[in-house]
Amino acid sequence: MTLTSWVPVPAESDFPVQNLPYGVFEPAGGAARVGVAIGEHVLDLAAALGDEVFARPSLNAFMAQGRRRWQEVRARITELLTDERHRPSAEPALHRLADVRLLMPFEVADYVDFYSSEHHAANIGRMFRPDSEPLMPNWKHLPVGYHGRAGTVVPSGTPIVRPNGQRKPPQATAPGFGPSQRLDIEAEVGFVVGTGSELGEPVALADFAEHVFGVCLVNDWSARDIQAWEYVPLGPFLGKSFATSVSPWIVPLDALEAARVAPPERDHELLGYLRDRADWGLDLTMRVRLNGHQVSEPPFATMYWTAAQQLAHMTVNGASLRTGDLYASGTVSGPEPGQRGSFMELSWGGKEPLELPGGGTRSFLEDGDEVTITATAPGADGVRIGFGEVTGRIEPAR
Amino acid sequence: MTLTSWVPVPAESDFPVQNLPYGVFEPAGGAARVGVAIGEHVLDLAAALGDEVFARPSLNAFMAQGRRRWQEVRARITELLTDERHRPSAEPALHRLADVRLLMPFEVADYVDFYSSEHHAANIGRMFRPDSEPLMPNWKHLPVGYHGRAGTVVPSGTPIVRPNGQRKPPQATAPGFGPSQRLDIEAEVGFVVGTGSELGEPVALADFAEHVFGVCLVNDWSARDIQAWEYVPLGPFLGKSFATSVSPWIVPLDALEAARVAPPERDHELLGYLRDRADWGLDLTMRVRLNGHQVSEPPFATMYWTAAQQLAHMTVNGASLRTGDLYASGTVSGPEPGQRGSFMELSWGGKEPLELPGGGTRSFLEDGDEVTITATAPGADGVRIGFGEVTGRIEPAR
Repeated sequence: MTLTSWVPVPAESDFPVQNLPYGVFEPAGGAARVGVAIGEHVLDLAAALGDEVFARPSLNAFMAQGRRRWQEVRARITELLTDERHRPSAEPALHRLADVRLLMPFEVADYVDFYSSEHHAANIGRMFRPDSEPLMPNWKHLPVGYHGRAGTVVPSGTPIVRPNGQRKPPQATAPGFGPSQRLDIEAEVGFVVGTGSELGEPVALADFAEHVFGVCLVNDWSARDIQAWEYVPLGPFLGKSFATSVSPWIVPLDALEAARVAPPERDHELLGYLRDRADWGLDLTMRVRLNGHQVSEPPFATMYWTAAQQLAHMTVNGASLRTGDLYASGTVSGPEPGQRGSFMELSWGGKEPLELPGGGTRSFLEDGDEVTITATAPGADGVRIGFGEVTGRIEPAR
Repeated sequence: MTLTSWVPVPAESDFPVQNLPYGVFEPAGGAARVGVAIGEHVLDLAAALGDEVFARPSLNAFMAQGRRRWQEVRARITELLTDERHRPSAEPALHRLADVRLLMPFEVADYVDFYSSEHHAANIGRMFRPDSEPLMPNWKHLPVGYHGRAGTVVPSGTPIVRPNGQRKPPQATAPGFGPSQRLDIEAEVGFVVGTGSELGEPVALADFAEHVFGVCLVNDWSARDIQAWEYVPLGPFLGKSFATSVSPWIVPLDALEAARVAPPERDHELLGYLRDRADWGLDLTMRVRLNGHQVSEPPFATMYWTAAQQLAHMTVNGASLRTGDLYASGTVSGPEPGQRGSFMELSWGGKEPLELPGGGTRSFLEDGDEVTITATAPGADGVRIGFGEVTGRIEPAR
């Protein structure tokens, strides 16, 4: 039997009762607080559940309470929204999404960005290092990643100012300075840590769901010309640190059970701490729109490394986790040209500009361009669940 | 006339009244709070100044108040500690350093690590990439840096558990897993951001002292074997993220006026935003001790890039600053073998084990080893000021 809510949920909605993603919203004239999306509404959790942990402008305090509590709250919200008898008490806690402002859903502790799509890594390798093997020797032995700037993770809708910086064309003898001319997106999936861990104690792959609270969409804006000049030998820095956008809704792991799939076949045996004991690949289909027209449909299920493997790797050296840690998958690119998660790949480094569905071509982002990333996945009861969207518009360099 | 305090300050003390570094301490039976070191004592600032901003377990709230306020407080503390008339009221706010516990002095927002010693970068380049030029083409055009893990920045004295991880000897066909066999230090100087900046707005080189509150010592523990296998192409990750230790005292920039020197001669013209308008090189002499014996004396004045240039670079793309951001200089190594800030360099990658002053040799750190870094600089009135110490002992892998 398909579970349904007494709250009307349009057929195309991202937010059926099988989803129940968490966010932070500001009602007209009210203070920011935690809510759950249902159809075209958001449920004020402090009001509906009478728990002050939700009367805050961030999910962190609730996320820190741990998996058992997350499951209790999810069960309670499901009951409230599906049992007509709760309607009289719960309905006053609903706000129309159209009437509220969605804010940054959590305070970011550390931000790590992985690089776990084989197709993306190989595409970038071919373009950045044309004379070498596209994948580095370590790539299939460990999920390559690096730390990004937590302080510039911004909520969906924040304008993205085109960054200035140093860039050196291959034939130039010295770098020049100015606005990035190769401004790009990276369509990624983000994982939000709820409960931390102790310094010195690795988190086992099997404990993934004890620590990770939920999933969001990430656009890791990238200035390819700045990145290309700066990134050797210590990795990306200013080419990435100007902004990273996240979607306002955090989809709980429990909403994604039906989306779990096996990751791609491995070419060779993995070291013990990375061996899959449970499948945490996710059958999530992303869509990238430029100025309203879809330009790509990256398939998350093609990612070589799962989020559980990323977590196990990130902590195997004893590095501790904190509530609010965000780690992103890396650009999601599938094997087909129409499945690439960056303009760098879609336009092959600018050599093959993308024909836009709305007319014209595009290699990299122009001022005024708006990029929106969405995603859907199979949910319980055969329904489709959605992730909302992460969007941002490019403002001219200052 | 040399300013002196009515608090007795031994001749060899790091903390004459010309220094006045800030830290967070816990008196026996009391709550953690902000203090200033003077000789062998710490002054409880909440008690001495009657300001609740200091009755907290972190410097962040005070640091966020900005430079004018930092200067007012410094002037007031100087008056309290030098004018005998204040002795009756201020003396009860003094605690003996021997009686208190020193804690993490601030909450770290983002942590960035630079790579600004030409001697260190060239030494590492020669060892990691023996077939290439030691310095990358970008190195003299911009201060190379990357983000590290803020959540594993720990206070001096925290035990350092030897990390496990993947490492692959050059002749092996696949990586192995186990405790790092090339555990190392990086002796660095850290800069702590007091006042933040707006997203999209670069911080000019000339505004360095408006944003940076003070200076501490940093030991950026590094597992060279893990780092060597993982770091291409996105930079260091698990080879660094297990721990970074900082000293308990933050020396205010105003205490370092007498230590300011011109940075080394530049080989070629810099882009405008990096051109030195004021000298922020610092004549700071560091000392590295292994198990009580000095093994190195890195001279900070030899750093190619200054902290002001690092700040201007870090924000030139519009990346914002937050109160509590920490950025470190990168390993400080001078031109002489006895001035190198890492064991990797001191033992030349293990090929020339270091003869220890106490007997025996050392290439990389062994379990039980204790590393302590100190530093001194010229202060006002011709006195010497010190930075206290950052120390840590290696525990066996788990």
